[in-house]
Amino acid sequence: MTPRAPDRFEPLLSGRARIGWGVPVGTPRPAMNPLYEFGGGFPDPASFPYDGMVEATARVMQSEGAAAMTYGEPQGYRGLRELVCEKYERFEGLKVEPENIIVANGSGHALALAFSAFVDPGDAVISEAPAFSGSLITIKRHGPQILDVPVDAEGIVTAAVRARLEALRREGRRCKLIYTIVNFQNPSGPTQSLRRRHELVELAHEYDTLILEDDAYGELRFEGETLPPLYALDRHGRVIRAGTLSKILGAGVRLGWLAAPREMIPAFQGFLFGGGVSPFMSRVATSFMRDHMTTHIQRLIDVYREKRDAMLRGLDEVLAGTGAVVSRPEGGFFLWMKLPAGTDQRRLADLAVDARVQYTPGPVFFPNGGGDEFIRLAFSFEPPEKCYEGARLIARAIRAAGPR
Amino acid sequence: MTPRAPDRFEPLLSGRARIGWGVPVGTPRPAMNPLYEFGGGFPDPASFPYDGMVEATARVMQSEGAAAMTYGEPQGYRGLRELVCEKYERFEGLKVEPENIIVANGSGHALALAFSAFVDPGDAVISEAPAFSGSLITIKRHGPQILDVPVDAEGIVTAAVRARLEALRREGRRCKLIYTIVNFQNPSGPTQSLRRRHELVELAHEYDTLILEDDAYGELRFEGETLPPLYALDRHGRVIRAGTLSKILGAGVRLGWLAAPREMIPAFQGFLFGGGVSPFMSRVATSFMRDHMTTHIQRLIDVYREKRDAMLRGLDEVLAGTGAVVSRPEGGFFLWMKLPAGTDQRRLADLAVDARVQYTPGPVFFPNGGGDEFIRLAFSFEPPEKCYEGARLIARAIRAAGPR
Repeated sequence: MTPRAPDRFEPLLSGRARIGWGVPVGTPRPAMNPLYEFGGGFPDPASFPYDGMVEATARVMQSEGAAAMTYGEPQGYRGLRELVCEKYERFEGLKVEPENIIVANGSGHALALAFSAFVDPGDAVISEAPAFSGSLITIKRHGPQILDVPVDAEGIVTAAVRARLEALRREGRRCKLIYTIVNFQNPSGPTQSLRRRHELVELAHEYDTLILEDDAYGELRFEGETLPPLYALDRHGRVIRAGTLSKILGAGVRLGWLAAPREMIPAFQGFLFGGGVSPFMSRVATSFMRDHMTTHIQRLIDVYREKRDAMLRGLDEVLAGTGAVVSRPEGGFFLWMKLPAGTDQRRLADLAVDARVQYTPGPVFFPNGGGDEFIRLAFSFEPPEKCYEGARLIARAIRAAGPR
Repeated sequence: MTPRAPDRFEPLLSGRARIGWGVPVGTPRPAMNPLYEFGGGFPDPASFPYDGMVEATARVMQSEGAAAMTYGEPQGYRGLRELVCEKYERFEGLKVEPENIIVANGSGHALALAFSAFVDPGDAVISEAPAFSGSLITIKRHGPQILDVPVDAEGIVTAAVRARLEALRREGRRCKLIYTIVNFQNPSGPTQSLRRRHELVELAHEYDTLILEDDAYGELRFEGETLPPLYALDRHGRVIRAGTLSKILGAGVRLGWLAAPREMIPAFQGFLFGGGVSPFMSRVATSFMRDHMTTHIQRLIDVYREKRDAMLRGLDEVLAGTGAVVSRPEGGFFLWMKLPAGTDQRRLADLAVDARVQYTPGPVFFPNGGGDEFIRLAFSFEPPEKCYEGARLIARAIRAAGPR
């Protein structure tokens, strides 16, 4: 009998491949064909600039087709790096040079470059809990010990970060990096306060570590004040900042980046194998965004604000008085809900399948367990009326899964 | 005084980042602005289907724009995986299912997935010497011990592979994988014979290891018989095959893949961070290739054959009688030359800069040193008349750098 292939190759797997081996990739959720997709952070399909992308492709093929169709710069298309600098300056008052930017295939890939450059299996890293589940999968694949710290209304709790760093120092160890989502924290919603931002940057310097500042949604601010990024507050070259076009153009272009001290760029570039990140796609995306960035983003802000408000209204109408606590983020794609005490999450999952409402259960956002009393709802994908209807449906399911 | 940033972060670098740290990324070559670009394997810019890409983009935006603009399947766009299967069947008689294919950002990235899945620092791997310099950089970054084996007119010397495997076995060690370029070996030119292919597959089974079969150029065969891929000869699930659209569509699309036993796919997928490889680019490239693959490739075969012949003619006219040995590959992008005995490579480099002819010196293709007596010339990029002229110029430089 021919042995099964896994018997052949499993003993040959690398240490890193074994870390995730046998664990299903992605988030396990009940099989369903949702009518209300509140699960992933999918951008609004009605807002994609379909015609704009065709026009941009025609322009790029006309003016720089040969460069678009061949190998590109190792650090990424310079025009895109310039666009990122322009975006940073316009939306956040942050001054960065194209030499500080390295392009990646989306921000998940950008984060992976940072972890590859700095994290060995067994190393200590600090992460917010809850934190974006996709990032946690990426972090875990690199095998570190994840020390979690809580998030409150001002974002990452810096006192808890200090306690973690101090405990490591007592053990003679060192934190490799601190992973934090600064704006409309995914999933829990708060924007990190200016005070906390200053404290976090100082802590990184005091304890000789780095910060990985993740910001996928910063431009999509519906209200409230834009605060300076950690990257802007850092005077010691300790902050790496990740960004993406996924939420402001479309995730299908797979374009993200890291901004970092110039001397650090080669450390990331060493993990980019092949001939430059998407020379074609980079040029097409840049060509569109160069002409339309500000108006397109302003339109998206209106689109997503309306969806957030519709979902909040639907939830509030049904859940008032139950003890459910719902976030009200100043931007981004997500609501975070602490379920009423005594909610049966298994029953809620079943009822949500019946109602065909997809959501993400809390535990996937906690690196070291916990989170059973939370769920995340994405308002980004469905139109406002479905955000409202679906919110009412999931809210009724929550009531029905409550204590009887 | 503020310390320089490297003093801050260097102590925090990961083990893998240190492997390549301080080593310049890419191939160091004399600075020049070549008139004759014979260095890298750049596809012919005159053959890029510029209008075809615009039309394909318009079609994709029209028919599946929403899918193209958002996150994709973790294993890669199914339409592209089907196209790869169709290509394999049409050009090599190889039957593979879309479930056996995983899409990557070019074949360099595909190879990196294979090394990530199977190679830890210190592991033994076998590679041909010479072998494609870009692959050697990727392999080295993963930190293995590279055991080299020579290539002759029939491709990889299987007796040398056996000797390497046997020596490892005596040490109680095991080879993780054997890296081989089967068609028009890059850089040295030969196509692996059918006998060697059978022997190599048997060796992998006998010594319980895997084969990474790299084939970036297989469809671009100008003459001679297409031989079955190692993947087709393997009955034990031990062959992983890497491919790319870079040479038959354009390197700027950054689309490559691995074909592998189905059970192995998750081992690679675990190293794909983010939301699916290039959903937009995959659909545009697939849409074009679905309609035009066979005619486009047939046209490219004629284009590159003419360039090869022009370069061979130019070299032959000047170098006849010098003792230079030039490959005559049945396809692909490259000529490989053993320089006349006593050629001064440093002087050749200077003379080539004067003549503005770019080439790649032999040593970058040897993982463990050597290769001083070789150079590689790419005929892919320049038009035929420049292949001819530039070949005469570099040939004169070779004569001038010879013994006096």
